[in-house]
Amino acid sequence: MGPRGLDTGGLELVEAPDTIAMDEKPAEAVRAKPDASLVVACRAVADRRADAVVSAGNTGAMLAAGLLHLRRLPNVLRPAIAVPIPAANGPSVLLDSGANADARPEHLLQFGHMGAVFAEEVLGIARPEVRLLSIGEEAEKGNQLTLEAHALLAESGLRFAGNAESRDLLAGAADVVVCDGFTGNVALKLLEGTIRTLLDALRAEIAATPRGKLGGLLIRPAAARLRTRLDPDTYGGAYLLGLRGLAVIAHGNSSRVAIANAIRLAARGVEHDVVGRLAARLPERRPSAAV
Amino acid sequence: MGPRGLDTGGLELVEAPDTIAMDEKPAEAVRAKPDASLVVACRAVADRRADAVVSAGNTGAMLAAGLLHLRRLPNVLRPAIAVPIPAANGPSVLLDSGANADARPEHLLQFGHMGAVFAEEVLGIARPEVRLLSIGEEAEKGNQLTLEAHALLAESGLRFAGNAESRDLLAGAADVVVCDGFTGNVALKLLEGTIRTLLDALRAEIAATPRGKLGGLLIRPAAARLRTRLDPDTYGGAYLLGLRGLAVIAHGNSSRVAIANAIRLAARGVEHDVVGRLAARLPERRPSAAV
Repeated sequence: MGPRGLDTGGLELVEAPDTIAMDEKPAEAVRAKPDASLVVACRAVADRRADAVVSAGNTGAMLAAGLLHLRRLPNVLRPAIAVPIPAANGPSVLLDSGANADARPEHLLQFGHMGAVFAEEVLGIARPEVRLLSIGEEAEKGNQLTLEAHALLAESGLRFAGNAESRDLLAGAADVVVCDGFTGNVALKLLEGTIRTLLDALRAEIAATPRGKLGGLLIRPAAARLRTRLDPDTYGGAYLLGLRGLAVIAHGNSSRVAIANAIRLAARGVEHDVVGRLAARLPERRPSAAV
Repeated sequence: MGPRGLDTGGLELVEAPDTIAMDEKPAEAVRAKPDASLVVACRAVADRRADAVVSAGNTGAMLAAGLLHLRRLPNVLRPAIAVPIPAANGPSVLLDSGANADARPEHLLQFGHMGAVFAEEVLGIARPEVRLLSIGEEAEKGNQLTLEAHALLAESGLRFAGNAESRDLLAGAADVVVCDGFTGNVALKLLEGTIRTLLDALRAEIAATPRGKLGGLLIRPAAARLRTRLDPDTYGGAYLLGLRGLAVIAHGNSSRVAIANAIRLAARGVEHDVVGRLAARLPERRPSAAV
């Protein structure tokens, strides 16, 4: 039995009476509320009382708590949010999906290495193909950031296959798709929003006529299969990579299934020692220019 | 009758024997091939022998030819590509969709003004609402570029409604959505690619069972209505705004319908004097800081 007589099924229940709202300023909230659950959980991982933290709370606060209590791995310049994308030919991982709104080329290089470790250990892909999200497949297409990152990635030892275009993201552009956090966040939300808006619009068109309604009943299982495959709940969450402990961020509106899958995602990362693999990978391949 | 005895229906046919391929370097190709059709057409507009140029050719070459022969309007810092988005509640315009891979805050301010003129004159929207594409609706969410652009747009006199999130782009985030050309190009291609991939995936799921196939036949008219609404051919093209003449860029794989609509889009811009409206708007509202 845990505190207050709750049956915790043998798990230790740690009290965390503070609450960080979704609209609070992350860094301030994390300092002002040391007893919020995501802060308590990050401390528990830092103190090795827990193996991983899973939260569906304020993403910025999770990042701030991770940086403050878990801290960066020695050679990591910036942590990154790695999100599994339900691509048509199997999952790929998009990073950074929003940890850093501004990034430098050497950060993108590290994101490539971190994404490769994620793809290998969490998605089970041997020698994952890495691409850089840009505005044309040719090496000379891009902005200043991607042009410089392209050169670094080409010499990285990763299985780098050049630029990926966003039009191929859902079809399966690469095992690992690298970008800055602003672009990644725009891309991720656009993907989710477009899928939702399009399926809603199709449903409305179908419901507009009796013929359509009958057809809609008949395609319901097919639509449900598609929705399940594209559902973010299938993966349950994103990894916050680059810290000295494992952190999984679930959607703010996660279902019970999504939370269960997020915990499974965290467990897989612990079993495959993603943090140890990252620590081992980054120093050895980090170019001196990135110091 | 035009040259070579072709019946041109009374239109003057101007010979343009050079060809610029899709993979040629834009600026070099435009200088090396003065008799390519898009270069000839830009010169015709510059010489006032034509009112507008429409091309489905190399976008970069079109931009280079526009800058070289049409030249920028006096107070325009950078031209921008303005693309109509088939949003659920009516068209909105996204700019810059790829003319400038890197942009400064004052460019985004001008894109806001240019997009407002486009929405007023081409889309027929009075007092269009302008939003800045970012990674959160709050003013303090964004990267360095959008944070600074937000401040400029807030003081611009435009009907600025703050940040838009990419998840709302297809649902109708605003009449005018402003961003740098890298982000806009990623967003536009992601939108197009996700729509195509999703509809293909749905078709494949439907075709997987006899029940689904029957349902698919019944929803065909509904799906066709949706596809027509979302079809880029419906608008036919994008405006290259900020030049001393009107230029419309059509998709490289445009159908005959798309080319006809692109010409219609150009005609509408001429009738509504979009270039004159831009020239009149930009100096008067341009803040001194942007000089």
